[in-house]
Amino acid sequence: MRKILVVGLGLIGGSLAMALRGFEDFEVVGAVRSQATHDKAAARHAADWLTFYPADELPGADVVILCQDPAGIIGFLQEHRDRFKAGCLIWDVCGVKTAVMEAAQCLPAGVDFIGCHPMAGKEVSGIDNAEAGLFRNTHFIVTPGPHSTPEHLALLRRIAAHCRFGDVIETTPERHDQMIAYTSQLMHVIAVSVCADEGLFSCKGFEGGSFRDCTRVAALDPAMWTQLFSLNAPALCQVVEALEGRLRQCREAIEAGDREGLRSMLAYASERKKQIDLERVRGDDVRPSFGNS
Amino acid sequence: MRKILVVGLGLIGGSLAMALRGFEDFEVVGAVRSQATHDKAAARHAADWLTFYPADELPGADVVILCQDPAGIIGFLQEHRDRFKAGCLIWDVCGVKTAVMEAAQCLPAGVDFIGCHPMAGKEVSGIDNAEAGLFRNTHFIVTPGPHSTPEHLALLRRIAAHCRFGDVIETTPERHDQMIAYTSQLMHVIAVSVCADEGLFSCKGFEGGSFRDCTRVAALDPAMWTQLFSLNAPALCQVVEALEGRLRQCREAIEAGDREGLRSMLAYASERKKQIDLERVRGDDVRPSFGNS
Repeated sequence: MRKILVVGLGLIGGSLAMALRGFEDFEVVGAVRSQATHDKAAARHAADWLTFYPADELPGADVVILCQDPAGIIGFLQEHRDRFKAGCLIWDVCGVKTAVMEAAQCLPAGVDFIGCHPMAGKEVSGIDNAEAGLFRNTHFIVTPGPHSTPEHLALLRRIAAHCRFGDVIETTPERHDQMIAYTSQLMHVIAVSVCADEGLFSCKGFEGGSFRDCTRVAALDPAMWTQLFSLNAPALCQVVEALEGRLRQCREAIEAGDREGLRSMLAYASERKKQIDLERVRGDDVRPSFGNS
Repeated sequence: MRKILVVGLGLIGGSLAMALRGFEDFEVVGAVRSQATHDKAAARHAADWLTFYPADELPGADVVILCQDPAGIIGFLQEHRDRFKAGCLIWDVCGVKTAVMEAAQCLPAGVDFIGCHPMAGKEVSGIDNAEAGLFRNTHFIVTPGPHSTPEHLALLRRIAAHCRFGDVIETTPERHDQMIAYTSQLMHVIAVSVCADEGLFSCKGFEGGSFRDCTRVAALDPAMWTQLFSLNAPALCQVVEALEGRLRQCREAIEAGDREGLRSMLAYASERKKQIDLERVRGDDVRPSFGNS
């Protein structure tokens, strides 16, 4: 029997441990730090068994999944670099990839680190909110290292299929970070910036679906997102600044009473949105084939 | 038998006509402009009967619901000001209230115009997407005129209950427009500004729930939203400019590597979001009482 060690049973780690149940001949071991998480994970049968001592499991672990925040992942790699089993596969789940791939260079040859980012989440955190179905039909982004083996990539694809991800996207850490600055980090910057408005509490009763949707992710973990933003500063600042410019452009057209200019901006964006929605539908159709990009 | 005339069977008008089925002793008449909408509305039994000539129905209509865009509503009031039945109630559903309330001043005494705004919608439009359940648990905002009668306000509340709105919010047109600039129009400005980014199409495969949620409303009707934005320009420009400032502040903290400043911004907004979510849950609890604000 082979062994998967999941380090950190928060929302993502807990959900992964649950989703991995029954995967091939692997047993799933969950590493926790607090008694509270241990007890909740035990009550929910989140893993085959639980430990407070991940270091003891490393020599026997064929797959290690690091589900901490970026600093936790980087620290774990540095602290335990010589304890991993030869030929094992390590992967992480955090939202930046260049920084963790660089940290993984401390690992000895024969230990394969592949950066991963499940594009799944919730506005609430912790094992309480974990669920096996969290990854269903979401993207699983994978950034292999220079020496990653085809066997490990194939194993990751089987894991993704078992966890019911919608597809596997293989890319470079740099491209991941550039794309994620726009698709994910910018959405979080927007949500917190909207919720920082002094009018937030007085607007109760006037909110509709668009407000709930846009601000959903504002209740984020400040410490973790400070890390994520800081570790991707250049790419993120670029997309935030570009957004500021487009907002200003839209505002200036409204201020100037330039209805034709405003209408053509709205028509341009609306058309693009309709197009990308169509593409997503087509993407759904081909999901079972697990394509690359 | 009394008569409700719904003018315009798009997403909102069509859904209202359907939701009003069986309301007290009213028959529901739907006024359409195109043969295509007529045929779809007939096939879906959207109203008790349909007409291409709303003017002919006005002398017998006890309630008239104007479901066009702002220009359509304002034009309809001006064109038909002398055809409404004495003592009737007219209300509209568009997203700005000051401009339509001003236009309604052309109506003769005894014809009661109440501005309304159902905080419901979809990212798709038209009778094809209409449904009786669209208003369930959403806010119904009401801006009475200076001479609106208690009887008409009570009638509107019974209509709101029948259509299963979550609550009725009574306010002034000016406050409505100020609040809506932030909770709704700003969300649409954000969505189109995000979708205007040159990186939109290349980000396929990297999007998660936050991106889908934030950009959902970008596929808007450019002509209608140009009207809505233009008719609420000062309030909207104010909130857009404030957002630009908060985005810049956040970006500057990231650029400067000011992790403590960034963390405290994120913590502030995150805490506010958690608080307002709690308030929404409490709001849900008291829904059946149909409170005011």
